[in-house]
Amino acid sequence: MPQSPIRKLVPFAEQAVKDGKSIYYLNIGQPDIKTPKTAIDAVKNSDIDVLAYSRSEGSETYRQKICKYYSKHYINVTHNDIVVTTGGSEALLFAFGSVMDVDDEIIIPEPFYANYNGFSIASGVKVVPVISKIEDNFALPPIEEFEKLITPKTKAILICNPGNPTGYLYSKEEIQKLAAIVKKYDLFLISDEVYREFVYDNHTHYSIMQENGLENHAIVVDSVSKRYSMCGARVGCLVSKNKTVIDTVLKFAQARLSPPTLAQIASEAALETPQSYFDDVVKEYVERRNTLVTELQKIEGIKVAKPKGAFYCIAELPIKNSDNFAKWLLENFDIDGKTIMVAPAAGFYSTPGVGLNQIRIAYVLKKESLIKAVNILKEALKVYKD
Amino acid sequence: MPQSPIRKLVPFAEQAVKDGKSIYYLNIGQPDIKTPKTAIDAVKNSDIDVLAYSRSEGSETYRQKICKYYSKHYINVTHNDIVVTTGGSEALLFAFGSVMDVDDEIIIPEPFYANYNGFSIASGVKVVPVISKIEDNFALPPIEEFEKLITPKTKAILICNPGNPTGYLYSKEEIQKLAAIVKKYDLFLISDEVYREFVYDNHTHYSIMQENGLENHAIVVDSVSKRYSMCGARVGCLVSKNKTVIDTVLKFAQARLSPPTLAQIASEAALETPQSYFDDVVKEYVERRNTLVTELQKIEGIKVAKPKGAFYCIAELPIKNSDNFAKWLLENFDIDGKTIMVAPAAGFYSTPGVGLNQIRIAYVLKKESLIKAVNILKEALKVYKD
Repeated sequence: MPQSPIRKLVPFAEQAVKDGKSIYYLNIGQPDIKTPKTAIDAVKNSDIDVLAYSRSEGSETYRQKICKYYSKHYINVTHNDIVVTTGGSEALLFAFGSVMDVDDEIIIPEPFYANYNGFSIASGVKVVPVISKIEDNFALPPIEEFEKLITPKTKAILICNPGNPTGYLYSKEEIQKLAAIVKKYDLFLISDEVYREFVYDNHTHYSIMQENGLENHAIVVDSVSKRYSMCGARVGCLVSKNKTVIDTVLKFAQARLSPPTLAQIASEAALETPQSYFDDVVKEYVERRNTLVTELQKIEGIKVAKPKGAFYCIAELPIKNSDNFAKWLLENFDIDGKTIMVAPAAGFYSTPGVGLNQIRIAYVLKKESLIKAVNILKEALKVYKD
Repeated sequence: MPQSPIRKLVPFAEQAVKDGKSIYYLNIGQPDIKTPKTAIDAVKNSDIDVLAYSRSEGSETYRQKICKYYSKHYINVTHNDIVVTTGGSEALLFAFGSVMDVDDEIIIPEPFYANYNGFSIASGVKVVPVISKIEDNFALPPIEEFEKLITPKTKAILICNPGNPTGYLYSKEEIQKLAAIVKKYDLFLISDEVYREFVYDNHTHYSIMQENGLENHAIVVDSVSKRYSMCGARVGCLVSKNKTVIDTVLKFAQARLSPPTLAQIASEAALETPQSYFDDVVKEYVERRNTLVTELQKIEGIKVAKPKGAFYCIAELPIKNSDNFAKWLLENFDIDGKTIMVAPAAGFYSTPGVGLNQIRIAYVLKKESLIKAVNILKEALKVYKD
């Protein structure tokens, strides 16, 4: 037998497995929102003889149109500041590989998107978590907490804004605190902004790319996946004004040849999506969030962080271990043959033992389903014994 | 200024840059062959409302159909032995990450596909080259040469069969020699078989997956890119009967969520491509190869390795440095406003100073263009001074 493969990645919390029961999937971030027809039609109407490589950095017309999109969000970049990637995932992987060497460290407020761990392990770098709290709605931890963790090996701070799994939206002031510390310690600030449009209650998203003086430090990770409900396209991008970063990212991009051509056609067309699409989507998510939070708060002993963005919500349950609870829900509980699948939040923390009684709920289901799903949660908690 | 990005990847030889001149691109592996219409039509006729993630390991129906394809090539696998990837590139990256840890070593006969270096650097592993020679048409080096290089850090041997950039097709006997050594030293044998169909002169491709007793050691990297002229699809796969390998690869696959959905639809339909398509393509490439080799051999002082597969050919020129020569061709030479772009072969060697007088020619152009292009090479060599 050959040696066992050595690298170990975290278990994947986002993928659903079916059993005999009917399941409300509260655990996955696959929206049920329709992809803009203009995006799909662009592929259907395309005239392709040879499905050829695109440029490694993405097609030039697409990158130029992305700039126009950014300018609407007060982000001023040129197409040379953009490398199109195979999803936001690859943008993260390229960012990690480009600004860190093996054994370097990256500070990430936790709870964080579990796959950040996977990309860290694949890049051989170490995640250093700084805990944010459900009591603060997962606001930015005090900046001194970051400062305590900085070592000569620290190369970057990574945030997700608005956050998966927290739903927290960082304020301009919080971004400016992060800007100050990365400048002080000469670090990169990587911001995963794939949920930029999913911002509620008249809050405004403030991108790290809007912050003057941060040009050499800021790296934005972006994706069409959630924005246009095009998760399967696998098109994202990495944005930075730091030319050395872009040049290095481009080497990774060239090694994998090109991002997918068909999906770039769809993504370019998706940029024509009218604002009314987003208005409708945001309205829908606000109603879903309100429904979810209202229903959750009816459950005794529950603690809920009210999300300001994205479509995730973390809830703390009156139990000891949500991993066991999640399994029990699937295997041992149902109401009229229906149960729920939730994501245990421990997978979003890298500090052992933290978040064990929390779950993440993705409110990507219709309101009626959310009400039924939360009712199942409520009834389950009445009978569940840790 | 933040720290400079540290990881350095090799320059990318495959991407063309234009200047004022008309250029025959002999340097890139983008075929001009039409993509099967059935593949493109499948996407156009698809009925997609939400462009959702596929399963991380690829859609089950697609993987089942891949098994049928393999069975036609005497490769007996189930869909559980297959992980669909974003191009052969990602399959290589997953293979490297899954069977090696940082600082481990992989032995690769050189010259080899330059991006193997990129994936090695991205994975933090070390390429150990073993030189194959143009005089032998780049046949497998004596197995003792491999044996000399094996250390406790050696985890795998990687081959490309048929080879990019060599065009060499390993015989069954050569594969069996490799099989014996990986079994003896408990290593993995990774075989990049993306050019499986591109085999000429009535030779037969022998896959490492056909070799009995190699089940736990063999990992095949595959792709639709060249097979169906679908380079832009970005769909490939990794195949292994070693369950631990597949489980580990799956963790990498899950971290990046899913391969592209639209391109999987095209790739699944492409499997219906009739044998006559490949017969025509192979016929075309054989004629191109014959034309190229015949024309090259008319040049005084040239040495050509006659390819048995793929669509690349390495030629040794009566010059000192093909990198300078390639630049000079673009900048200082033309016939009636036309010149050629060739890939200096040094980029395919990792031993410094080897292959400096060699170039790789991709015969992906029509015969008439190849004749004109080789004529430009011939005339250029008459006047070029190192």
